[in-house]
Amino acid sequence: MTRAELVRAIKDKKSFLCVGLDTDITKIPEHLLDDEDPIFSFNKAIVEATADLCVAYKPNIAFYECYGVKGWQSLQKTWEILPKDCFSIADAKRGDIGNTSAMYAQAFFDEQVSGLGFDSITIAPYMGQDSVTPFLDIPNKWAIVLALTSNAGSKDFQNFSDASGEQLFESVLQKVGEWGTVDNTMFVVGATRGDAFLQVRKHAPDHFLLVPGVGAQGGSLQDVCQYGMNADCGLLVNSTRGIIYASKGRDFAERARAEALILQQEMEAELLKAGII
Amino acid sequence: MTRAELVRAIKDKKSFLCVGLDTDITKIPEHLLDDEDPIFSFNKAIVEATADLCVAYKPNIAFYECYGVKGWQSLQKTWEILPKDCFSIADAKRGDIGNTSAMYAQAFFDEQVSGLGFDSITIAPYMGQDSVTPFLDIPNKWAIVLALTSNAGSKDFQNFSDASGEQLFESVLQKVGEWGTVDNTMFVVGATRGDAFLQVRKHAPDHFLLVPGVGAQGGSLQDVCQYGMNADCGLLVNSTRGIIYASKGRDFAERARAEALILQQEMEAELLKAGII
Repeated sequence: MTRAELVRAIKDKKSFLCVGLDTDITKIPEHLLDDEDPIFSFNKAIVEATADLCVAYKPNIAFYECYGVKGWQSLQKTWEILPKDCFSIADAKRGDIGNTSAMYAQAFFDEQVSGLGFDSITIAPYMGQDSVTPFLDIPNKWAIVLALTSNAGSKDFQNFSDASGEQLFESVLQKVGEWGTVDNTMFVVGATRGDAFLQVRKHAPDHFLLVPGVGAQGGSLQDVCQYGMNADCGLLVNSTRGIIYASKGRDFAERARAEALILQQEMEAELLKAGII
Repeated sequence: MTRAELVRAIKDKKSFLCVGLDTDITKIPEHLLDDEDPIFSFNKAIVEATADLCVAYKPNIAFYECYGVKGWQSLQKTWEILPKDCFSIADAKRGDIGNTSAMYAQAFFDEQVSGLGFDSITIAPYMGQDSVTPFLDIPNKWAIVLALTSNAGSKDFQNFSDASGEQLFESVLQKVGEWGTVDNTMFVVGATRGDAFLQVRKHAPDHFLLVPGVGAQGGSLQDVCQYGMNADCGLLVNSTRGIIYASKGRDFAERARAEALILQQEMEAELLKAGII
């Protein structure tokens, strides 16, 4: 999916919501557990209930990989039912030396070989340029590189500062920004640090940002928009637990839709306020 | 596998060789391509030819994942034939927020659930403490954390220096060293920077180090041993291309053994010189 198509989807749907599919067998409704593939059944119902309210889906690959071969079957089936007008994100946090990153790109981008054809993949930048660029070499595919994450441990290394006061995540924004373009690169920036978006936007004013941490992790959508939005919106705000685990009953999909609708309406208000729609 | 068992294996086999299984279908002998699972056939022959000469095997997960479900089947079958007296490393470079890292730990450590029961996994530290500790909570399993890698891009962020001159990789060695112990944590340190081992050993004198980059990538085994060996050896030196792709003919396993034997003999000499055997 191109940047223009993504921006079009945001304007059409009046939403920049990404739904996380961190599907945990211990948290899904019991009545699904007798299905042949409960994880896929759950995902299918969630996707059908939310497809018109969001612009992206983000399966967290760990939640599939943890079941080995069977989990990869669930992942492939899930990828196949993701709506083609939604941006698809393999949340995989991969990154290795060049020839290995090229294999990971094949794993998540090359449907003919791997069975998966995601639009994008999340990348850990620790190994540097040759670990990132193989993901940028493929037309209409995106690398979403970790910059400033929303977890407790994010402070351990991402805030490491050089003599001039520049922090590691700023160096990541600058260098990765030079390796790619705003048409093939995004950054992960956690919502739990609203005003950090000011700093991020200094280095990456035009990039799209993938923003986890709204909702269950405590981030504020208003703060994210105030400090992080740009002329093209420039945000994909992810919500997982607040939507997919809104209910553990037979009404789980309906309740997921209701929660997604609340977020979509808040997003619509923010897009109007910013004059984007 | 415990540290004591690993040290015992090194002394018994007079080797600290790790064989990388980055098995690329375009590089394996043509006569295997008609097999039902050529990648597994290749790995099985390589393992049978080298098992008495090495103490560890390291499948590079990208090379399996790139074939999707089928690749994970090859990986699982490969894991099943790894000799139980060898240390097994899932070279996966994973790392995510706490609950997701716990799922990755299940993926590679919990045979009952995922079908894979590796002894260890390689970890990218960018996301900090909660991304690493879930791998340390499981008895007799190891996290092998990226510190100073051997690729061109390693300089982009790993040498980022703070006001005191401390580099990011040194901060990783220090902090990760506090989160884990020498019994459940190793570090990846590339062989292409021989004298960097002096700096690494200042922060991690007792840890085992996983050392890629000897051979095809240009690192010297003698330098690695001179600067990196400790009283327990403390090194697992990986070779991949030099061994597994020594020949593309029907003699590939025999030639792989011959190359592994050369390295094992050099390692025996180093172990003797250091008084470890």
